[in-house]
Amino acid sequence: MFKIAIIGAGSAVFSLRIISDLTKTFKEVEVSLMDINERRLKSVLVLAKKLNEEMGTNLRFRTTKNLEEAINGARFVINTALVGGHEYLERVRKISEKWGYYRGIDSQEFNMVSDYFTISNYNQLNLFLRVAKLVEEKAEKDSWLLQAANPVFEGTTLISRVVPINVVGLCHGHYGVHHIVETLGLDMKKVEWQIAGVNHGIWLNKFLYDGNDGYELLNNWIEKNKYEPKHPFDDQLSPAAIDMYKFYGQMPIGDTVRNSSWKYHYNLETKIKWYGKFGGADSEVGWKWYQENIRTISEIINELSNYVSENPRVKLLDYNLYKNFLHVDIFKEEIDSIINPGRLSGEQHVPFIDSIVNNKKQRLIVNIPNNGVIEGIANDVIVEIPALVDSTGIHPEKIEPKLSERIIKFYLQPRIVRMEIAVEAFLTGDFNLLKEFLFRDPRTKNEEQVEGVLNEILNLPENTEMRKHYLGG
Amino acid sequence: MFKIAIIGAGSAVFSLRIISDLTKTFKEVEVSLMDINERRLKSVLVLAKKLNEEMGTNLRFRTTKNLEEAINGARFVINTALVGGHEYLERVRKISEKWGYYRGIDSQEFNMVSDYFTISNYNQLNLFLRVAKLVEEKAEKDSWLLQAANPVFEGTTLISRVVPINVVGLCHGHYGVHHIVETLGLDMKKVEWQIAGVNHGIWLNKFLYDGNDGYELLNNWIEKNKYEPKHPFDDQLSPAAIDMYKFYGQMPIGDTVRNSSWKYHYNLETKIKWYGKFGGADSEVGWKWYQENIRTISEIINELSNYVSENPRVKLLDYNLYKNFLHVDIFKEEIDSIINPGRLSGEQHVPFIDSIVNNKKQRLIVNIPNNGVIEGIANDVIVEIPALVDSTGIHPEKIEPKLSERIIKFYLQPRIVRMEIAVEAFLTGDFNLLKEFLFRDPRTKNEEQVEGVLNEILNLPENTEMRKHYLGG
Ligand SMILES: NC(=O)c1ccc[n+]([C@@H]2O[C@H](COP(=O)([O-])OP(=O)(O)OC[C@H]3O[C@@H](n4cnc5c(N)ncnc54)[C@H](O)[C@@H]3O)[C@@H](O)[C@H]2O)c1
Ligand SMILES: NC(=O)c1ccc[n+]([C@@H]2O[C@H](COP(=O)([O-])OP(=O)(O)OC[C@H]3O[C@@H](n4cnc5c(N)ncnc54)[C@H](O)[C@@H]3O)[C@@H](O)[C@H]2O)c1
Repeated sequence: MFKIAIIGAGSAVFSLRIISDLTKTFKEVEVSLMDINERRLKSVLVLAKKLNEEMGTNLRFRTTKNLEEAINGARFVINTALVGGHEYLERVRKISEKWGYYRGIDSQEFNMVSDYFTISNYNQLNLFLRVAKLVEEKAEKDSWLLQAANPVFEGTTLISRVVPINVVGLCHGHYGVHHIVETLGLDMKKVEWQIAGVNHGIWLNKFLYDGNDGYELLNNWIEKNKYEPKHPFDDQLSPAAIDMYKFYGQMPIGDTVRNSSWKYHYNLETKIKWYGKFGGADSEVGWKWYQENIRTISEIINELSNYVSENPRVKLLDYNLYKNFLHVDIFKEEIDSIINPGRLSGEQHVPFIDSIVNNKKQRLIVNIPNNGVIEGIANDVIVEIPALVDSTGIHPEKIEPKLSERIIKFYLQPRIVRMEIAVEAFLTGDFNLLKEFLFRDPRTKNEEQVEGVLNEILNLPENTEMRKHYLGG
Repeated sequence: MFKIAIIGAGSAVFSLRIISDLTKTFKEVEVSLMDINERRLKSVLVLAKKLNEEMGTNLRFRTTKNLEEAINGARFVINTALVGGHEYLERVRKISEKWGYYRGIDSQEFNMVSDYFTISNYNQLNLFLRVAKLVEEKAEKDSWLLQAANPVFEGTTLISRVVPINVVGLCHGHYGVHHIVETLGLDMKKVEWQIAGVNHGIWLNKFLYDGNDGYELLNNWIEKNKYEPKHPFDDQLSPAAIDMYKFYGQMPIGDTVRNSSWKYHYNLETKIKWYGKFGGADSEVGWKWYQENIRTISEIINELSNYVSENPRVKLLDYNLYKNFLHVDIFKEEIDSIINPGRLSGEQHVPFIDSIVNNKKQRLIVNIPNNGVIEGIANDVIVEIPALVDSTGIHPEKIEPKLSERIIKFYLQPRIVRMEIAVEAFLTGDFNLLKEFLFRDPRTKNEEQVEGVLNEILNLPENTEMRKHYLGG
């Protein structure tokens, strides 16, 4: 029996996916559910135990609010916490917008994802490091840290540079490939593909269908079809995606489509032009939709957990249970992946653990140090690439054909510059780096604006530590 | 006897420096003075011949308006032409400002120098390539192209990638080191120094005085002195330079000080704060001053040439001749360097030729392909570095200590991205690259602005070829 710790386990959907996957993969595991939010933790625990019972597995759950306790003796630590929660992000966004930074100071060229805060969520990066150091000190020998929480790119690069542990970033952005394949009416089994890049900046460098050029099929589809998004996140074939594809020469995959330049993001009108009627996930409309959804889902899970507590005979694996809880589309999909015994959730965390523990060689998309895999990118930058994982570790595939020159020079390089500034700012506490980040921001008009927005953020009560780090005293 | 061609020889001050240096270095050279402006060419010819006569050398001058004729059989070709002249630059600047691009669309983060046009002077890059190809076809075997005209960075990189000739970029920006040393009251002979970077983006990586850390002396000076610029170009120790030094950890040298981020350049007020009362060379005030100066000097040279023609007995090497022409400060300095037989002008072109032709091993600051000299920069990017030059070629010094990480990651990398976009746009004629350049510009608010400013520039009568290149037809 080995131990897994989930940090931020109150992130209910995520935890249930992981736990459900565990029941479908392992007979016995010790799972430490760690969060600072007791109510959320309790809900997850009830559902987790029920799932375990119904699946006939022997997972042992413990909840804790103590980070060290959770990590102590763990072989795998999954970090999915969001320090400050969405509320903090929205507070910072509001301050930013007051100072003229539409969608927040962390929304930047090639990083528009609205909960991917690279400079103003100091506490988040701080937790990343705290977790990593505890893994170094308290976890089992040769343990792994699985970084799920964002910013995966900055966070994993940071950890890999300063804490000597095994760390891997995992994300599900590459499912965009499946979306394309389905939309084109193709059979995924006949597709040979690769993506490469950095987290939320990945590109379809290889796309073969039945041995032939898949891009030809994509081009045909593009010529003949008009895109209409079903929801704000439905952007894989949006005009923005196709415009990026035409410019960069390869298709942006997953959240990469959101992470475009200001050309597509100046304002809601522009966003609507490029991402369809909602303006994409990162417009004021799209993000509100997302927040309402996750709030509803969180409430549903809470209700569900109460209901299950009060009615111990009901079965979680029985679809009928959910008839009262299916008014949210996104949740419907979740339920299916969680309770369908023949199907994993799609998160890569449990498959990764399976590969390491059981030497089950399989292909995963991982975030690891580049070490020469992508030419033109430094070795110590974390890249997102396909790899074979087994008990001996992670074995990256050769990226062939290469990423286009434009992607490397005009997309990845500038994105990496921003990552480097954020990481160095965090490591050195040099306030001038935070300022420089904003001096390079197209929305900045003068120094007062830079000082103003940063000071207001640093003065938030939850940022005492950040303030001390950057301004001393 | 070998042949040198000077393209754009009507750039009178530059040509006179070169010719004067030649008379102090060689006994016999054939010099082809090429320009499209006959009047300027004539003025230069009169003064050149006179200088040759008085110096007792045997330089043979020919003027021509034909590029091929000039380059035919040359062993060295110096390109100092500015296609369209300053008038064209101002016309583009005016159009740009109408569309909201203060100081012009070519003024960019890390490239604020007002006559360093990287995307809107297509004709200039086109001439660079035409010259390079003629060097390949018509010049002597093993000939050299000395690139003096700007943009040296983009131009030299472009040429070195597509035309298989010897090309070197030469600039005098590194004299900023001398300026610092003089200002600190030190003796240049006791200084050991290196600079490295890219053209107009060079940094003092090594600074020893009498074997001790020169930066300590600089820090002392900074603490105790207040800067007051004597003229707009007097910026080597400006608050901007010092702020950059503090941020990047090494001192920016020469035009690098002008090539800072928007923080120092938002508007005239900001520029004055950072560069002193004129707002630096690249403010509306400073640049006007410069333009008036070069106009006056050009007129003086014209007058001088007429005067010498009409009074063949006067001596160019006689200081008294200039009493009527010394009302412009900058010209005074010029005169001294040109007629003082014990001193070269400071331009590196003739010393470079001397090293190659006479195997005179000397240290020069050159722009050549990186090929590993600066870590973290691709091999095929032209860097500006110190090198020993002799008849076997250019031998770069090892850069030690290295450039700071911040310079490489936060300054050079982003600067290189812009160079790459400009070079690829020029090579492919992809209009989307020009647009992308501006979509990444902080002054851009929407697509209409991008299309508007580019179309208006492309519609200028002198840009027919550029228009065809980017828009076809
Ligand atoms: N990698 C991926 O595939 C992927 C996908 C979606 C979201 N995410 C990321 O996962 C993270 C969680 O997102 P969410 O929407 O579920 O957020 P959430 O706020 O709903 O959940 C995060 C959880 O972290 C907990 N938490 C906060 N501070 C903590 C601390 N100091 N210690 C332990 N737990 C703490 C919260 O109480 C909460 O339960 C975000 O960073 C998000 O961007 C990653
Ligand atoms: N590398 C350096 O150290 C350095 C220093 C100062 C200026 N410069 C650069 O040198 C160039 C010249 O600057 P300037 O201020 O003397 O400009 P200028 O306009 O005074 O002189 C340039 C000359 O080029 C000529 N010319 C224009 N089109 C031509 C063509 N097609 N063929 C031949 N000649 C042509 C013009 O007639 C003019 O005589 C600029 O690019 C400037 O940025 C370089």
